Amino acid sequence: MPASPLTRADAEALDGQDELAFLRGEFALPDGIVYLDGNSLGALPRAAAARVREVAEREWGERLVRSWNEAGWIDLPARVAARIAPLVGAAPDEVAVADSTSVDLFKLLAGAVRLRPGRCVILSEQENFPTDLYVAQGLAALAPSLELRLVPRAELASALDDRTAVLMLTHVDFRTGEIQDMAGWTRSAQRAGALALFDLSHSAGALPIELDAAEVDLAVGCGYKYLNGGPGAPAFAFVARRHQPSFETPLMGWMGHAAPFAFDTRYRPAAGIARLACGTPPILSTAALECGVATIEKGGVDRLRRKSAALTDLFVRLVEQECAGFGLTLASPREAERRGSQVSLRHPEGYAIVQALIARGVIGDFRAPDLLRFGFAPAYLRFADAWDAAAALRAVMLEREWERPQHRERARVT
Amino acid sequence: MPASPLTRADAEALDGQDELAFLRGEFALPDGIVYLDGNSLGALPRAAAARVREVAEREWGERLVRSWNEAGWIDLPARVAARIAPLVGAAPDEVAVADSTSVDLFKLLAGAVRLRPGRCVILSEQENFPTDLYVAQGLAALAPSLELRLVPRAELASALDDRTAVLMLTHVDFRTGEIQDMAGWTRSAQRAGALALFDLSHSAGALPIELDAAEVDLAVGCGYKYLNGGPGAPAFAFVARRHQPSFETPLMGWMGHAAPFAFDTRYRPAAGIARLACGTPPILSTAALECGVATIEKGGVDRLRRKSAALTDLFVRLVEQECAGFGLTLASPREAERRGSQVSLRHPEGYAIVQALIARGVIGDFRAPDLLRFGFAPAYLRFADAWDAAAALRAVMLEREWERPQHRERARVT
Repeated sequence: MPASPLTRADAEALDGQDELAFLRGEFALPDGIVYLDGNSLGALPRAAAARVREVAEREWGERLVRSWNEAGWIDLPARVAARIAPLVGAAPDEVAVADSTSVDLFKLLAGAVRLRPGRCVILSEQENFPTDLYVAQGLAALAPSLELRLVPRAELASALDDRTAVLMLTHVDFRTGEIQDMAGWTRSAQRAGALALFDLSHSAGALPIELDAAEVDLAVGCGYKYLNGGPGAPAFAFVARRHQPSFETPLMGWMGHAAPFAFDTRYRPAAGIARLACGTPPILSTAALECGVATIEKGGVDRLRRKSAALTDLFVRLVEQECAGFGLTLASPREAERRGSQVSLRHPEGYAIVQALIARGVIGDFRAPDLLRFGFAPAYLRFADAWDAAAALRAVMLEREWERPQHRERARVT
Repeated sequence: MPASPLTRADAEALDGQDELAFLRGEFALPDGIVYLDGNSLGALPRAAAARVREVAEREWGERLVRSWNEAGWIDLPARVAARIAPLVGAAPDEVAVADSTSVDLFKLLAGAVRLRPGRCVILSEQENFPTDLYVAQGLAALAPSLELRLVPRAELASALDDRTAVLMLTHVDFRTGEIQDMAGWTRSAQRAGALALFDLSHSAGALPIELDAAEVDLAVGCGYKYLNGGPGAPAFAFVARRHQPSFETPLMGWMGHAAPFAFDTRYRPAAGIARLACGTPPILSTAALECGVATIEKGGVDRLRRKSAALTDLFVRLVEQECAGFGLTLASPREAERRGSQVSLRHPEGYAIVQALIARGVIGDFRAPDLLRFGFAPAYLRFADAWDAAAALRAVMLEREWERPQHRERARVT
C-alpha cells in the first residue's frame, strides 16, 4: 500500500489480492449498499435462506413432529454448538447453544456463584455491555446475599479479592472495539480465587479466541453478529470441562434433563454441557444459525482476523486522509492488534451523521451519546467498501448533511 | 349422528356440515397422513412458510439491520402477544411473547414470590407437567428460603395455607387431557392469600380461556402446540394488569428495559408487561408464530372448541365401537366438557402401538409408561380423520402389529 494519498484503485488492488474474496459470494447482500453493521446483525448467508425454507416447508410442513428424530432437530443445538466450539478455542463438549445471550449469561452467573460458595460478589466494570450488567442485577435481586460491584477498569485488579466469585468482562468492547486481555484477566481472577467469565458477543466469528488456552472458566456469546445467525439467533454458552460436573443451572428445563422423555418429577441434570439447555429450542432460528457458523468455518478465523485488521486499518487511514478537520475523532484503538472488527468514531452530531450515511447507502450505527460505529465483517466486506464508506463520510461532512431534518428524527431502534 | 354402529359415511357427513372445514386449507398438510400430534407440534400454516421466506430473504437479506425499524421487528413480540391475548381472555397489554415456556415460567414464579413477601411455598401437584416442576426446583435451589411443595391433587386444597406464595397448575393435563377448574382453583388460592398461576400449553388455541374473568394472576403458554407457531416457537406469558406495577422479573435484559437504546448502566423496567422481555427475540421463529396465531383467530376459539369436542367425542365412540376387547382403556375424561382437545388411551404396549400407527400414517405420540396420546387439533382435522385413526388402531390391534421388532425400537424423541 502506498504511504499516501490512498485511492480507490489501491483499495481495489487489495481486493484483487484478498484470499477471502470468494466468501462474499456466500452471502445475499443487496446491491448499492456498504454494510458496516455486521457487528449488530450479520448478513444473510445464501445457505440460510435455503435452509430456513427447507425446515419450514419440508421438515415442519411435510414431516411434522417426526422431524425431531428424522431431521435431527433434537440434536440441532448441540450440533451447532460443536461447530462454534473450534471458533472460540473450546472443545465441542464445552459449548451449548440455547436461548438468548442474556438468558445464557444468567445461567452462567448463577452457576458461577454456586461454584464459589462463600463468595458473594460479581465484579465487573462500569463500562461493560449494559445488558450484561442488567442480568447480573437481576440475579443479585433474586439472591439477596449476592452483590454486583462495578468499578472503573483501572480499579478492577485491586477490586479482585476473596469476596469475588466471578469477574465478568466483555472480550471486545461494544463501543470502542477495544480487545481486553482475556488470558491476563483470567489469571488475575483465578489468582484471587474467582472465576473469569467473558462475553464474546463482539468477537466470536471475527477474531481467534482461545478459551481453553487462556483457561477461561465461563463464556457467553451472540449468534447474530459476526456468526451471521440471523435476527435474534440463539446464543452460545461455554463452561470449561473442569467445572461441568458441579455446574448447576438455575434454569432447569426438560431439554437439560438427563432423560427428557422419562417425564420424571425430579430434575436430574444431563451429563456435561447438555444441562445448559432449558426449554424447547427455536428450530427455525437455530437452523439459520448453523448456516451462519458455516460461513465462518469456510473463512477460517485466522484468515478472517488478518482481513479484518487490514480492513479496519485501511478505514482508519482513509478517515484520517479524507475526513480530517471535520471534528471526527477515533474512539477505537489505533493499533489493529488492540482492536476488534469495528472502527468507532466520535462526533457530537453522531446520530444524524449515521442517518445521513445510511441515506447514502453506508449502513453503520450509532451508540449514545456520540459514537458512530462501523463494523467490518471480514467475511463479506471488500476493501473498496472501506473506501466508499470513507468517501461517503467525507461527503456527509462536507455537505453538513447531518443538519437535514430527516436525519435528525429518532427511530425506535438506533 | 346415529346411535350405532357408526360408519365412515357418518364421519364424512359431519365433515360436510363442518363450519370450520374451510380452515384446513390454510395448512400445508401432507397427503396420506392423519396428524394427531398437533398437541405436540401444530401443523404448518401456509402463510408461515411464505412469511418465513419473506423474513429471511427480504427483511434480513435485503434490508438487513434496517428491518428492526422498517419491518417492525422491534414490535413483533408485542404484536403477536396482543393477538394471543383475546384467545386466552386477556387484554393486549397483559401478554408478552418471549423466550421458551420454561424460561417464562421461571420469570413468573420468581415474580410471584416477590409479590407475596413472607410466603415461601410454591404449591403444585405431583402430576403437573414435569418441566414446570423442574423450573420451580431450579428457582428454589437459587433462593434457599423457597420451597416447592408437591401434593396429590386431592390434597391441594388443604395444602393451601398462609405459607403459600403461588399455586402452580396446568390448565389441561398433558397426559389425560383433563381440564382443571381454573376459576375454582384461582378462588381457592386467592382465599389463602396466594397467587394462581396456570400453564396453558395444552389449552391455548384449542379451547376458550377466560384469564380475566377467572381473575387468574399469572399464566404461561406454549406457541408451538395448538397455536401452530412452529418447532420451538416462543412462548407467551400473562401477568394480570393489577400485578404489573410491582412485578419484578429476575431475567432483566435489555429488551425489557425502559430505554433499551439508552444503554444505561442501571436496569429500569419498562412500563407494564413489556418488562417481561429479556434478550433479543428470535425473529424467524416469532414471525412464524404470528402466522400460527392468525389461524386460530380465523377459526375462533368458540367454534374451535365446539368442533374439538365433537371430534374427540366421535373418536372415543369409535374406539369403543371398533377396538373393544383389545385391552385399551380410556385415560381421558369421558365427558367432553371435562376434556381438552386430546384423547388418551392406556395400553401396556402403548409405545409399539403408537409406532405401528405411525407406520400406517396415523401420527399420535406416546408418554411413559403406557399412554397413547391423540391430539385433535380442530383447526385442520376432519371427522373422517377420526374414523381413519380408529380404523387404523383396530387394524394394529387385530394384527398385533406392536409385536413387530421395528415398532419396538426406541427413538431419541418419543
